[in-house]
Amino acid sequence: MKFCSHCGSDALRFDVPEGDNRPRYWCPACGTVHYQNPKVVVGAIPVWEDRILLCKRAIQPRKDYWTLPAGYMENGETLQEGAARETWEEACATVNISDLYTVFNLPHIWQIHVFFLSTMVDERYGVGEESSDAGLFLPSEIPWDQLAFPTVSRTLRYFLDDRVRGEFPLRLQDITAKPIAGLRD
Amino acid sequence: MKFCSHCGSDALRFDVPEGDNRPRYWCPACGTVHYQNPKVVVGAIPVWEDRILLCKRAIQPRKDYWTLPAGYMENGETLQEGAARETWEEACATVNISDLYTVFNLPHIWQIHVFFLSTMVDERYGVGEESSDAGLFLPSEIPWDQLAFPTVSRTLRYFLDDRVRGEFPLRLQDITAKPIAGLRD
Repeated sequence: MKFCSHCGSDALRFDVPEGDNRPRYWCPACGTVHYQNPKVVVGAIPVWEDRILLCKRAIQPRKDYWTLPAGYMENGETLQEGAARETWEEACATVNISDLYTVFNLPHIWQIHVFFLSTMVDERYGVGEESSDAGLFLPSEIPWDQLAFPTVSRTLRYFLDDRVRGEFPLRLQDITAKPIAGLRD
Repeated sequence: MKFCSHCGSDALRFDVPEGDNRPRYWCPACGTVHYQNPKVVVGAIPVWEDRILLCKRAIQPRKDYWTLPAGYMENGETLQEGAARETWEEACATVNISDLYTVFNLPHIWQIHVFFLSTMVDERYGVGEESSDAGLFLPSEIPWDQLAFPTVSRTLRYFLDDRVRGEFPLRLQDITAKPIAGLRD
């Protein structure tokens, strides 16, 4: 951020505005404070019978790695609508979204990742514009060493464990910059 | 948004950028797309024995109405850290944050509201900078007609009902611009 998006001034400052308690970008010319807040990434676990739909990323970051359909939540939609939209955009599949399942804090990259349980309405899927491949995977077929993000691998591991037990409690976890020794992924 | 925060150009456009599928602010001069995404408001239900800590808002919106401590999640923190921070800033109370309890989609104002169960570590509280009053309320004392936001009143109603039952399941709800007839706040 180099210019004030409100008045165009190039004198933007990054320090604690008057009456605030943390540094922000703000404009001494017009007084506008440019708040920046965490973004929500929302996704689904699209299930068809005993298989799970994954897609291969055609774009950075983590190009050529596999992921659950997920992406930035957009203005004007609900979490569930975002999860369904991403599944449609990335894997051309229609899902019924059910329970909120995993929530991850990623404070070092200013993000929250959220995944929903979901069921595909039929077996149809395809390769969306931001994907280079897509497929339905049995648990034994999941490419664990080619998964794009730790929030995806943890969500898949929880899901497979919980499916055996038949209970899907909400999972809320922190993922920080420094991996915790001994913790998978 | 009138000027490009990257190059200072005043030629910003608001339409669908190439390769995208929804309108955004973007700059034809330097190509920067200025994404805007929903914000997360995070709060706590601070409980001390059989009472709940509320604070009275000293600022707009909803000045002079009562609320649970809550505010915009900040970059670099977890949801739980945000809930604890807001409780400290608005009501000068220290809480132990426990389970995620309510999650509200508010798509018409581009927000998600999230509240956590929590316990005050002691009975101390105070009036934070953005509050004009604070207090511990028995269930029978809650000022229902002077609550600031529907997400606060719904969270309180759920909490009081669930406390009787001794179970606090996650509550995920949409609140839209048009109130649904017959639904209590």
